[in-house]
Amino acid sequence: MIALFTDYGLDGPYIGQIHAVLATRAPGVPVIDLFQNVPSYDIRSAAYLLPAYIAPFPGETIFLCIVDPGVGGARRPVVVTADGRRFVGPDNGLFEMVCRRARRVTVQEVLWRPEALSVSFHGRDLFAPVAAMLARGGLPESRVAEKLASADEAWPEDLAQVIYIDKYGNLVTGYRAQRVPEGTRLMIAGRQVRAARVFSDVPAGEMFWYENSAGLVEIAVNRGSAQALLGLETGAVFSWQEPDRIPELSGNKQ
Amino acid sequence: MIALFTDYGLDGPYIGQIHAVLATRAPGVPVIDLFQNVPSYDIRSAAYLLPAYIAPFPGETIFLCIVDPGVGGARRPVVVTADGRRFVGPDNGLFEMVCRRARRVTVQEVLWRPEALSVSFHGRDLFAPVAAMLARGGLPESRVAEKLASADEAWPEDLAQVIYIDKYGNLVTGYRAQRVPEGTRLMIAGRQVRAARVFSDVPAGEMFWYENSAGLVEIAVNRGSAQALLGLETGAVFSWQEPDRIPELSGNKQ
Amino acid sequence: MIALFTDYGLDGPYIGQIHAVLATRAPGVPVIDLFQNVPSYDIRSAAYLLPAYIAPFPGETIFLCIVDPGVGGARRPVVVTADGRRFVGPDNGLFEMVCRRARRVTVQEVLWRPEALSVSFHGRDLFAPVAAMLARGGLPESRVAEKLASADEAWPEDLAQVIYIDKYGNLVTGYRAQRVPEGTRLMIAGRQVRAARVFSDVPAGEMFWYENSAGLVEIAVNRGSAQALLGLETGAVFSWQEPDRIPELSGNKQ
Repeated sequence: MIALFTDYGLDGPYIGQIHAVLATRAPGVPVIDLFQNVPSYDIRSAAYLLPAYIAPFPGETIFLCIVDPGVGGARRPVVVTADGRRFVGPDNGLFEMVCRRARRVTVQEVLWRPEALSVSFHGRDLFAPVAAMLARGGLPESRVAEKLASADEAWPEDLAQVIYIDKYGNLVTGYRAQRVPEGTRLMIAGRQVRAARVFSDVPAGEMFWYENSAGLVEIAVNRGSAQALLGLETGAVFSWQEPDRIPELSGNKQ
Repeated sequence: MIALFTDYGLDGPYIGQIHAVLATRAPGVPVIDLFQNVPSYDIRSAAYLLPAYIAPFPGETIFLCIVDPGVGGARRPVVVTADGRRFVGPDNGLFEMVCRRARRVTVQEVLWRPEALSVSFHGRDLFAPVAAMLARGGLPESRVAEKLASADEAWPEDLAQVIYIDKYGNLVTGYRAQRVPEGTRLMIAGRQVRAARVFSDVPAGEMFWYENSAGLVEIAVNRGSAQALLGLETGAVFSWQEPDRIPELSGNKQ
Repeated sequence: MIALFTDYGLDGPYIGQIHAVLATRAPGVPVIDLFQNVPSYDIRSAAYLLPAYIAPFPGETIFLCIVDPGVGGARRPVVVTADGRRFVGPDNGLFEMVCRRARRVTVQEVLWRPEALSVSFHGRDLFAPVAAMLARGGLPESRVAEKLASADEAWPEDLAQVIYIDKYGNLVTGYRAQRVPEGTRLMIAGRQVRAARVFSDVPAGEMFWYENSAGLVEIAVNRGSAQALLGLETGAVFSWQEPDRIPELSGNKQ
């Protein structure tokens, strides 16, 4: 199985062209659109989304991951193996959090190049063919890379920011809920937000945060839109109201 | 074949995770994104959309239907069989119109539960595995339910409201066109709208209503957007200009 | 393989119904959503997009192409074969540029009709079944058409307009970049835009144009949105600043 995780957007021509390459080079392999509207160019948000949303996929899945504003520049194409899961994409920070949270990581720099390589669409020309090779049990020409080039130590373990807004207007953050003591309130856009278990536990129209199905802190309004209520976009920051209760917060500052 | 009918939105991570579950648990079964942007949380609109859009699917299709604002609460998971077609989803009204319009209906309450069940994403954790079981010829542990818990007698046979707005800005309503005498005008947002057969029968820029390809009354502008022209959103109501000509209208009031 | 190129929009019910027809009538044939949000009703933009985005597909692909504002009217359904590639859709100009740029073109008017044909959704009822027949090696009842009915000689070889805006806000134009001397500047919305090779060659926030991965002139902002910066929509025109350097421009005027 190949799962796509990109900022290309489903509607336009990019994903279809990648599907064409995969269907041609790895016929019969199921290809799943996991997440195709990661915030555009936003490597950091993508890096915190990726480990949260790969859970339901079987271990042998190849994750084809492309948020690649530096395409055509110097960043390396890599195959990352993290606790047995394989990821293909640019070495630009995208795999940082997947790797930090894994116990065993290996990184291969991909040396293989296609005969025709556009300057701006390595997703189609380079990364998709590599994913197809892996899915068929092959391995592109590559060499062991000591580590990811881009490990940016300034990124916190958890990110107290909105990193995705879904169709409901729910604000998905880069903070793992398991790291927050039960019942802690958060502050965003000058408003206090209480914790709840799930939508149906609060009255319609009320805002709350909860541990979403990917394990992340998510701010929502029951039968409403937190985005519309707060007027926020991706990148908005929040804080914990009782930061002393959150052990790791001191190391999580931006 | 499994067809998905949800309010999750295609772009985000929800549909991809469901596809991952289905591909793992029912490998080789075709899965089709039938309708993934039903108005958010809007069970009633979804209930009127569902019977209209299932027509081209073969009888053995499993319809995995999720508009589930009460997820994590008390509503039951069900498998509904209506005139031989099978539907999986929450018992919250979503299947009301499918059942009312069918001659033979059976309802099974699903008792099976997965080992890991999130509080907010039963689509992935509960309903998708159930659909996969059915698609493979199995049946999850369940018991016969006398009837749908949620039959709300106040819902009319046809709904004189906009229940979906498509990419063209066409306003899809919950009213079956076959119930309206030919040529009847409708009123919406203070404007009279005449009937036409199809887009190419009216001048560019002109508004009309017609029987859409799903059998529903739809308000459109040839080569334009009825949504932009009228400034309406889902939920907008309309009336028939000659209600005495419409036999069932007295029973259809909201 | 069947590739879909339409203005239906992915989210709504139209594409799903087409997939249902294809899965039923051509089971096992891969179906790819190539481009599902071509500007609504905009045959001309679609005509210039189509030849640019078919490149990565194998030669035996059936392209099911539907931008069909005249559905239900007199335009003919056709199967076009252009340099061995086959296209199914309405004869309304949509295939004009594919045919002009091909060396060998044959056009078949489709005479076959389904038992049930809606007036407004020939994509589902007529074109999809025809594509399925072709994909299975069959041929619907048809007759040779001398030429496309709609060849509009007023359309230029290249179109100096924005014909699509992608998720990043990049402005895709109908102009093939290979026809423009290297380094030529363009003017749009009163601003001069310089050429660059790729995003990573210009500073963040800077606007440029480049040859996109489909060979078209595309106006972009590195890590930003050209659409937001310029406030433009599809249909916006541009000009070349040094038109004397562009051999074909005299013949390209609108």
